[in-house]
Amino acid sequence: MKLIPSLEPIRPQLERVEGLLCETLAEVEESLISVLRHSLGGGKRLRPALVILTGQVFASSSEPFYSLAAAVDMLHTATLIHDDLLDEAPLRRGRETLHRVWPPGAAILAGDYLLGQAISLIAELGHPRIFKVFGETICALCAGEIGRMIVAEAEPSREEYHRSIEAKTASLLAASTEMAAILAGAGELQIAALRRFGREFGMAFQIVDDVLDFIGDEAQLGKPAGSDFRQGLITLPILCHLERAKDDDPVRTVLSGQRDEEHVRVAIEAVRSSGAIEASLVEARAYARRSQEALAALPDNASCQMLCSLAEYVVERKR
Amino acid sequence: MKLIPSLEPIRPQLERVEGLLCETLAEVEESLISVLRHSLGGGKRLRPALVILTGQVFASSSEPFYSLAAAVDMLHTATLIHDDLLDEAPLRRGRETLHRVWPPGAAILAGDYLLGQAISLIAELGHPRIFKVFGETICALCAGEIGRMIVAEAEPSREEYHRSIEAKTASLLAASTEMAAILAGAGELQIAALRRFGREFGMAFQIVDDVLDFIGDEAQLGKPAGSDFRQGLITLPILCHLERAKDDDPVRTVLSGQRDEEHVRVAIEAVRSSGAIEASLVEARAYARRSQEALAALPDNASCQMLCSLAEYVVERKR
Repeated sequence: MKLIPSLEPIRPQLERVEGLLCETLAEVEESLISVLRHSLGGGKRLRPALVILTGQVFASSSEPFYSLAAAVDMLHTATLIHDDLLDEAPLRRGRETLHRVWPPGAAILAGDYLLGQAISLIAELGHPRIFKVFGETICALCAGEIGRMIVAEAEPSREEYHRSIEAKTASLLAASTEMAAILAGAGELQIAALRRFGREFGMAFQIVDDVLDFIGDEAQLGKPAGSDFRQGLITLPILCHLERAKDDDPVRTVLSGQRDEEHVRVAIEAVRSSGAIEASLVEARAYARRSQEALAALPDNASCQMLCSLAEYVVERKR
Repeated sequence: MKLIPSLEPIRPQLERVEGLLCETLAEVEESLISVLRHSLGGGKRLRPALVILTGQVFASSSEPFYSLAAAVDMLHTATLIHDDLLDEAPLRRGRETLHRVWPPGAAILAGDYLLGQAISLIAELGHPRIFKVFGETICALCAGEIGRMIVAEAEPSREEYHRSIEAKTASLLAASTEMAAILAGAGELQIAALRRFGREFGMAFQIVDDVLDFIGDEAQLGKPAGSDFRQGLITLPILCHLERAKDDDPVRTVLSGQRDEEHVRVAIEAVRSSGAIEASLVEARAYARRSQEALAALPDNASCQMLCSLAEYVVERKR
């Protein structure tokens, strides 16, 4: 299992989560396992890591947190499978996406199935408040995306961009730390602090993801650079770029529909050299700093420090 | 609200469920409501009715059962939206299907969103055992459908047909009555009896649905007759028919790929006149009778009698 360095100390716990995921899938027909493993494998495991680390802030044993960690990872994978299908993405985590391997219909169902398994795992926790957060998170994830799909806006405002990445990414990260804190029996202030940590962390994470779409390379990203841009997704680097761009800017040319390789290459180069990348990273670092500030309400132990350093990693990462 | 006659006595309760559904949807962006209402409206409301009636067997007030009834209906609608997309169905309940009105991707998300709302409603019940049944039901629904899609069998056995309709239909009906019984605080034997009622009722219901695909007309069904057959779905009437058919039977011709109007018309006529319809209905009636037998374990009050007569309706219905 390949891990980012700051997660090495919880490798045994993350391997337990992985084991639980495989066990759960082994209950399904044999034919499904290999394909679902295909989708589940190879991620950064940030969400289960946030659950395990939050648990360790309060409890010495990670035992009660494995099911929650697995559930959160399954929900995440379910949304990736559906999103890749929506976006017709060919690659994810360096492998062919599920709807390319299976008929697209089966990919819809595989996402639904993972969602069902995640709900079953959450149900076993026997904690109505966690169940509620989980349901609200699924709604937030979907409502955000539906909004994006049926309201085709030419150029979203910064506020709309922030609302959209909050729904699509920060909501699940916030839910991961919040649910783990509830499960750990933390006090209300600490639950709120951890939700805030997860939310700000998630905003930083997504902005950096959007930056990497412009400056990363395919080997690191597991998908071609500029994938989101080619699809017409308007992210923070583009918004920062357009704020200082002229009417005939190459980015506008691509956004207006000229999406051939040469136009895309020139536009990516323009974004890279306009200072938009640096401006976006300034915002990402501000979110990461706010996530670290939220940790002040928590016991200052090794796990809390790991959460803190994870917030460093998230803005410095290259993939 | 158009209701089947045997549900008239609980019209006020079903209208409350409808109101709750609309309220829940009103929390979403305005643009979503009309389209989601479009999908939610017009069904037979059998699942919420089973919840309300099961509740009334034990409790005088339906108050605690509205959220569960709404959740079950939302889960059902979510699966319909995804199934129609999978099957590329043009019509449902006499209206254009959601993926024809919206981009197909938004229809995937609308299904997910309804699922999230259903989970939120279930969470509010604060009853871990109900969460667990709900989660398992989603898994059963999906695993059954995935199996159907990736294991392309030329001609399923009767056993495979029964397994498939159990997963796709009976599982949710069984869960509806089981969850309502749990919520009502029924004893273990009664919970088991109601689960059994829902399951057998569901098997009868689906067999009749499969029969109506051959003998119903478009105005009654809300979709063209023979819709499932045209898609190559092999249901009980076909299995009964093929058991006594020759090698050059017109049904085999359609199943082997000749799906033009004339071949389909001749094949439907063959199924209608071969006794396959009657043989299927004999099976459906046996299921309905077993569902009624399960009710023996329950208090013999008016609501229990309504469940009993609903099992009559289900095999006599024409739509």
